Parts: sequence; C-alpha cells; structure tokens
Amino acid sequence: MENLLEKLKKAKKASSSLALLNTKVKNEALAKIAEGIEKNQEKILEENEKDIKKGQEKGLSKSLLDRILLNEKRLKDIVRSIDDIIRLPDPVGEIISLQKRPNGMLVGQMRVPIGVIALIYEARPNVTVDGAILSIKTGNAIVLRGSSDALYSNIILAQVMRSALKETKVLEDAIQVIESPEHSVVEELLQMREYIDVAIPRGSTNFINYIMEKAKVPVIETGAGNNHIYVDEDADFDMARKIIFNAKVQRPSVCNAIEKVLVHKTIADKFIPLVVEDLKKVGVEIRGCERVCSIVKDAKLATEEDWYTEYLDLIIGIKVVDSLEDAIEHINKYNTKHSEGIITESYEKALIFLREVDAAAVYVNASTRFTDGGEFGLGAEIGISTQKLHARGPMGLKELTTTKYIVFGEGQIRE
Amino acid sequence: MENLLEKLKKAKKASSSLALLNTKVKNEALAKIAEGIEKNQEKILEENEKDIKKGQEKGLSKSLLDRILLNEKRLKDIVRSIDDIIRLPDPVGEIISLQKRPNGMLVGQMRVPIGVIALIYEARPNVTVDGAILSIKTGNAIVLRGSSDALYSNIILAQVMRSALKETKVLEDAIQVIESPEHSVVEELLQMREYIDVAIPRGSTNFINYIMEKAKVPVIETGAGNNHIYVDEDADFDMARKIIFNAKVQRPSVCNAIEKVLVHKTIADKFIPLVVEDLKKVGVEIRGCERVCSIVKDAKLATEEDWYTEYLDLIIGIKVVDSLEDAIEHINKYNTKHSEGIITESYEKALIFLREVDAAAVYVNASTRFTDGGEFGLGAEIGISTQKLHARGPMGLKELTTTKYIVFGEGQIRE
Repeated sequence: MENLLEKLKKAKKASSSLALLNTKVKNEALAKIAEGIEKNQEKILEENEKDIKKGQEKGLSKSLLDRILLNEKRLKDIVRSIDDIIRLPDPVGEIISLQKRPNGMLVGQMRVPIGVIALIYEARPNVTVDGAILSIKTGNAIVLRGSSDALYSNIILAQVMRSALKETKVLEDAIQVIESPEHSVVEELLQMREYIDVAIPRGSTNFINYIMEKAKVPVIETGAGNNHIYVDEDADFDMARKIIFNAKVQRPSVCNAIEKVLVHKTIADKFIPLVVEDLKKVGVEIRGCERVCSIVKDAKLATEEDWYTEYLDLIIGIKVVDSLEDAIEHINKYNTKHSEGIITESYEKALIFLREVDAAAVYVNASTRFTDGGEFGLGAEIGISTQKLHARGPMGLKELTTTKYIVFGEGQIRE
Repeated sequence: MENLLEKLKKAKKASSSLALLNTKVKNEALAKIAEGIEKNQEKILEENEKDIKKGQEKGLSKSLLDRILLNEKRLKDIVRSIDDIIRLPDPVGEIISLQKRPNGMLVGQMRVPIGVIALIYEARPNVTVDGAILSIKTGNAIVLRGSSDALYSNIILAQVMRSALKETKVLEDAIQVIESPEHSVVEELLQMREYIDVAIPRGSTNFINYIMEKAKVPVIETGAGNNHIYVDEDADFDMARKIIFNAKVQRPSVCNAIEKVLVHKTIADKFIPLVVEDLKKVGVEIRGCERVCSIVKDAKLATEEDWYTEYLDLIIGIKVVDSLEDAIEHINKYNTKHSEGIITESYEKALIFLREVDAAAVYVNASTRFTDGGEFGLGAEIGISTQKLHARGPMGLKELTTTKYIVFGEGQIRE
C-alpha cells in the first residue's frame, strides 16, 4: 500500500532545501525536466495510450478523452511552456517593502516560498507538469493527485520529472505523486495540516465543493464561472454583439466564458433580436426571462435554476433588467464571483459597475475570456481563485509565495 | 433562542452597503462610536462589574480578572485608539497596479473589503471595540463572539456601538454579537461558508486549534509564540543581554516574548552565567540542556516537551548549540513560526539567519517584542497571523481587505 505520510514527509524535507536555492539553480532544474520530457516522449505516449484505452473501455465521453490525450504536438507545447516559465522573473527573495521605524529599526517584508503545495485535479495530464514546474520555480515542493482516468500518464510524467531532477540540486522528492485511485487517500491528505501548506483543487464545481467540505488544510478555491455581460442602455451595439459572441462561443467549455446576458429594458426590443441572431447561427440555445420570450418566439423560458447554472455549453440565458442597479443586484445574487462585464458608453455607469460588482475580475467593454494568467500579464497560471483570501483571480508565480517580516536592528529593545 | 442565521444574514446585507461607503462617511461613524462609548461610560462599567463579580465567584485567576476589567482609564484608551484608527489611511479603493496589455486593455487590481469577518476571542473586552472599528474602517461587517467570561461587557459595548451607528450611514447590522455562551453556536458559525468570509480566532493555542479543527469557513490562524533568541559566537554580549532581558521579562505573558535562548558553544561558558544572572534577578526560572546545567548549577534539566512549550511566564529554556546551522535547525523544528532573532556582528550569518529561519518575523539584533502592528508601522492590529496564506505576521487594515481585478477595455475580444 502507498505510504502517504512517507511521501508528505519527503516533500516537506525537500521543500526546506528547495526554498533556499537561487533562481539560476532552479531554472537549470526546470531545463533538465524539459529535456527529460523530450527524451522520453515515446514512453510517455505509450503510457498515455493505456489511459486512453482504459477510458474508451470505460465509455468516457469524446471530449473527456480529448482532455486526457497526449500527442507529439501537445508534448511540444508542454516543453515550450516550461521554457516560458524559465524566462519569467523569480518572485522569491524580493523585498516588498522596507521602512525605517522611529527607533531606527528597518522593517521589511521578504517574499518566500509557501512550502508544500497539494494540487488535486481532474483529467488533463499537462497540469501534472505545469503544477510541478510552477512550484519548483517558486521554491515549493508539490504533491500531485490527478484524476484516476489519467493515472498512467501522470505517473510516467512524474517519474520522468523526478529522474530529471536527479542530475540537479533540486531534490527529486520535491515532486510527489499520489498513485492510489482511492478517494480515502485524498481525504487523508486533506487532513495533514502539518505537511500541506495549501491545497489547490482544480475541476468541476462538485469536485471543488467536495474538497472544501473535507479539507482541514488551507484551500484556495478555484471555481466555476457563471459569468454575465450586462448591456447598458447606452451600449455600442456592435461592440456588445462582438463581445457577447466572443465570450460565449469562442470556447464555451471554459470557466471564463459567459453564461448569461442582461439587457437594459429600453434597448431590449432592438438589441436582443440582433444578438440572438448571432448566437443562433452557431447553434446556441436561448433561454430567456418572460420579456425575452415575448421578443424571441422560440426561446425557452428560463427557470430559477437556470440563473444559477454554469452551462459550459452552447446555451445562454438572457434577461431584461430595468436598470443598472437591477443588473448589479442580479449578478451579485446569482454569480459565482468569477468574471463579470458591462458594455456601456457611460463613464459613470462603468465606474459604478466596477465598484459594486463582487467578482474576481470585473470588465468594462471587453470579453470575459481574458480572465487568465497569461492574458493578465502574469506569465503563467496555476488556477483562477474565486475566493477572497490570499489570491483572487488568476494565480501566477507570486500567488505561490508568501512573505515574512525581516527586521534589521542595532540593539533596539521595547520600552 | 438566538437566531444565528438571522444575524449572519443581516451582517452580510450590511456589508454590501458598507463596502461602498467612502472614507469620510466611515470615519464619521467611527467618531460617533467613540462618542457613544464616552457617553455611556457608566453603563459600560456597571455591566463590566457584573462580569468581574461572576468571575470572582467562579474563581478566575487574578490575571484573567485583570484582563476582563474595564475602568475609566481603559475606556479612555479605547476611545483614543478609535481616534488613531480614524486618522489612518483607508486602504479600500486603492488601485494596486494598473498595466496596459499588448491589446490596449488596462488591467489593474483594486483593493476591496473582504465582506463579513467573524472574530472569535477570549477575555479582553477591548477586542470587541477594536474588532468592530477595524472592520468598519475597512468596509467589512463583523460578527463578534467573545469569551463568556466577558459577556456582559461585550454585549453592552456592542449595544452602545450599534446604537451609535443609528445616527450614521453605516447600518447598525454591520456589528453583530453572538450572545449565546454555548460552544455549539461557535461550531455552527464556523460552518457558515455562505455568510462568513473569514474567521479570525484570538486566544490560547488550544482555543485556536479547536477553531481550526471545527472550521469550514476560511480561518486566519493567529498563534502562539515559542520564540527564540540565538546568540552567535561573535555577538556583542551587552546587546545580547539587553535584548534577551527585554524579550523575556518586559511582558512575559504575550506572544512576542521569547521562551528560549540558544547560545553558540564557544561563548557558552562566558555568556550563559551573565544572562542567567540578569534573569534570576527578576525571578526567571532557568531550564537548560545538559551543557547549560553543567554551567548553571541550579538549572532544571529541560525535557523534550520544554523545547516545544510556550510558557508565557517567567520561565526560560536555554540550550547550547554547536553552530548557526544547528541553531536554525532547532528553531525550525520547535518554533511556532512567530518571531525569531539572532544576535550577531557577522553580516553573513545575519543574512543566513534571515533567509533560513521560517517564521512570521525574523530579527537581527533587536527584541522580538516588536512583532506588533503598531511597532511595525501598520497603525493598528487585529491579530498576528502565524500561517502563510493571505497574511503573515501583524495584520493591519490592509490585511482586512482583498482585491479584485478591474479591466478597462475598448471592445477587446480574445482571438
């Protein structure tokens, strides 16, 4: 049987030495991992095929199988993303602030690694590599627990990364992979406050709620996106149509796509038929409030549950609202605190919307699809936090660090 | 029976409107609270006397009774600290960063309130006021659950504050006090993820562990301080003696006092008798490792448990170590990640200690007693975090806020 405690102890030990390595040494280790993945391409693809076969026998959906699939191109992308992360600045060691106190003491905050990160995720095996790379870059050890549907792939990728580390100053124990498919192991892991500094779950809403329910270790909640675009009475129609189309259709299965459109009543009759026409062309199903159904004859009447639902599919809910205030109230009630946008030409309304909507990212006149570490300029992303503590929105390298106060004295004592 | 859910719903509702008030309006509300406390001094002291009487009957210790006690001077201090917080800058609304992306979009982060804070604390009734004031200043609602030993005081203080708010734009529901002395109510509160954005426990280690064990809401752990001073072989003896004396003796019952001294072996024979002489003069009990016991004849031999213990009393553990590395290893094994210091004249060793010791605050040549929001220049403090996420070390106004991404676009869509 797998010895979870042993693995966590090793991870913790590896994290202490990793925390002290400088950027050059950490980058060299990352380059070795990239090299290892290139060299072992054949073996990795063989193991991935086992997952795919098992998935086909199990009857997994085509889209799920596609998420599990690795091929030469995808492995090249993985290697390229390692190179990208090597080039990013290392946040560790940065002095964020340093001020002189009246007694002459210098008090500052230094950025340091968090320690041991547990990444618990569904399906895509590239997350195995991403997670490990981002952790090592920021001086953290990582414990990986992927989906059992990608188990062969995850194990071989971790093996390849660990043996690449043998030639470096980063201890291979900085990467741990939990191999047991049992849920009980995850639940045990989530109790280990002494060894896990933070758990980051990535997956469906149900999966994340399950983790939140079980965890005694600190968790950063990454979440669903029941996102809205509100089209104000003085919106530019062309801009609104383009943004809605982009945010709904470009990649409907991701968390920063929109699920709902709210339209101000004074433009409802004119605007809704236009946007519905755009969306219907690509097969989007329309569900509307009563007023929308009276404008769009074949729209389905949305239920209360619809307003709460993240479809992740070519379905959209449309609602007519009486005012900006009503739009904001609706959003703050039904949203999942992910990404929300307004289309307006009004300076005042833009600022009210920015201030009053409660979400990780609030947009004026742009597609919500930009909520992403790369698009926001963070260079990389380990997930999108929809909670309020520590990190909110896309989490990059900085969000994988913490700080400590450092004090330079000359014998000061407290009076 | 107390309706907990009702109170939390009211707090959440009040937090939404409070989040949007500007600094002037919030400060006016704080001034009204200060006025209210001054005006109702008599009533407050009467209720406090009930707590004191109850405590005496219950046989509470003198020091605990002293913590519960309010008098004219202490109420004046409370009012003065409200004035101090009024004068502090309001972090809410600050734009932390704003950068232009290659597609022309402006992406920034704006500081916003967290929402509803639950403060769960033992004994001192001034925390009731502090917590409420810091929360309102940062646009948060607060749910207060103090010790049952100070229940009368906490209820009257909350009442006075709430009725002061009636004359202001801050809804009185922004301050909620849980009146039930039952533990089950706290446990229920700690499950309410929909209403509580963060719980901050303040009290003994056991109390905080109990909260961590029960909580499903996010918790910021404030903690014990099993703190060390390491005296390096090239330390200035005078400085070391003054700092150790200050850090141990000035206020032994607080979390930033030291509990242990580590001494480099080459100076042990000379230095330890000096520091022991200082400490014995004020009645500090000495517990030492074997080497210390051979130097200090009447020292008690420290047990393994001693090295883990936060005495909060006039007791100190002293240990001889062979090197800086041994000192760091000992500290990282036994400490509670609060405040740690080195006394050294060596530039190199100072930097190694700062980098390698894992704690919220790491000192060179200064007393650990400075780990405090006021002393670090934060102006105020709601607690000292000994965990790594969101806040580490003294938590001031900024730590009671979160951020949201704000995006200013001109029709950008994702390609």
